[in-house]
Amino acid sequence: MAHIDLGLDERAHPGINGPMRFRPETARPLNELAETLLRAPHPTLTPGERELIAAYVSGLNECRFCCASHSAFAAAQLPSGMRLVDQVRADPVTAEISDKLRALLEIAGAVQRSGREVTADLVKVARVAGATDLEIHDTVLIAAAFCMFNRYVDGLGTLAPEDPVGYEKAAEHIVRYGYGAS
Amino acid sequence: MAHIDLGLDERAHPGINGPMRFRPETARPLNELAETLLRAPHPTLTPGERELIAAYVSGLNECRFCCASHSAFAAAQLPSGMRLVDQVRADPVTAEISDKLRALLEIAGAVQRSGREVTADLVKVARVAGATDLEIHDTVLIAAAFCMFNRYVDGLGTLAPEDPVGYEKAAEHIVRYGYGAS
Repeated sequence: MAHIDLGLDERAHPGINGPMRFRPETARPLNELAETLLRAPHPTLTPGERELIAAYVSGLNECRFCCASHSAFAAAQLPSGMRLVDQVRADPVTAEISDKLRALLEIAGAVQRSGREVTADLVKVARVAGATDLEIHDTVLIAAAFCMFNRYVDGLGTLAPEDPVGYEKAAEHIVRYGYGAS
Repeated sequence: MAHIDLGLDERAHPGINGPMRFRPETARPLNELAETLLRAPHPTLTPGERELIAAYVSGLNECRFCCASHSAFAAAQLPSGMRLVDQVRADPVTAEISDKLRALLEIAGAVQRSGREVTADLVKVARVAGATDLEIHDTVLIAAAFCMFNRYVDGLGTLAPEDPVGYEKAAEHIVRYGYGAS
């Protein structure tokens, strides 16, 4: 049970869904941020790649609900599906991804520990692999945003269902309607 | 110099201001989130108290720009000004604040480490001191949001001026116009 009375059945509104219904005033910018970062048209990063960064950071933060959710959202939008998500979550160094995405995930991992862990060297490696300023910016902000979302979800002690079916259903909804249409 | 080319003079747009101008699409929800959490009408927490939570968390994350900014914003809106901000940043346990605010700062400190550090006991102490569900929710989300803002600012290696005058001027602007009017 969540730390506060969300005024709803948590099984029907697990994870972040409860707090978002409890406080729609903050849910609005939170959903707009997720939509802009993860789904809005982007010149180079696909929604699947951006969700992969979100899933990776959520895994590092050990946030079960966010990690299961964004792993499902990434898998639903990547050609190689959950196999690639599992590879990246296990170790980006050996995952079958481009050197550019590997370098961006390295930056995201640094952000998860602390903003001050992002070094000029990490950024240089990403640049050599072809990363643009926008890709580096968005990677830093996606990683930072999930350090917020993960803490929001776990800091309120919300429910993280075990059954993967709910996350797969949520993925269908997100892919079709995006964030903020729930 | 920031890790990416923000296309502006960082001395004129230090800290988060550079990335916000670089990417106005994400600046919009970020500013709306800050305005709603820190300045919008609230039944019990003053803007000064909410900025105090933001300053405290930014100090724990060692984010110089955010800590100096939100310390100035808190000081400008609290009757006892920077003296109280310094007390809280040094140690909430001995600061001259209410037991309720002390318990909320304790929760914020837990969120800074990890969402999973917020225990039922911490929440109970806050409740006994009179904290409402909304206050606990907003404290968790303010602390979580500053784990994002701090990482955004430092993860992009932005400039944090030493001179306190700039932060005091920014405080005047925020108190008068709020977030998102820059």
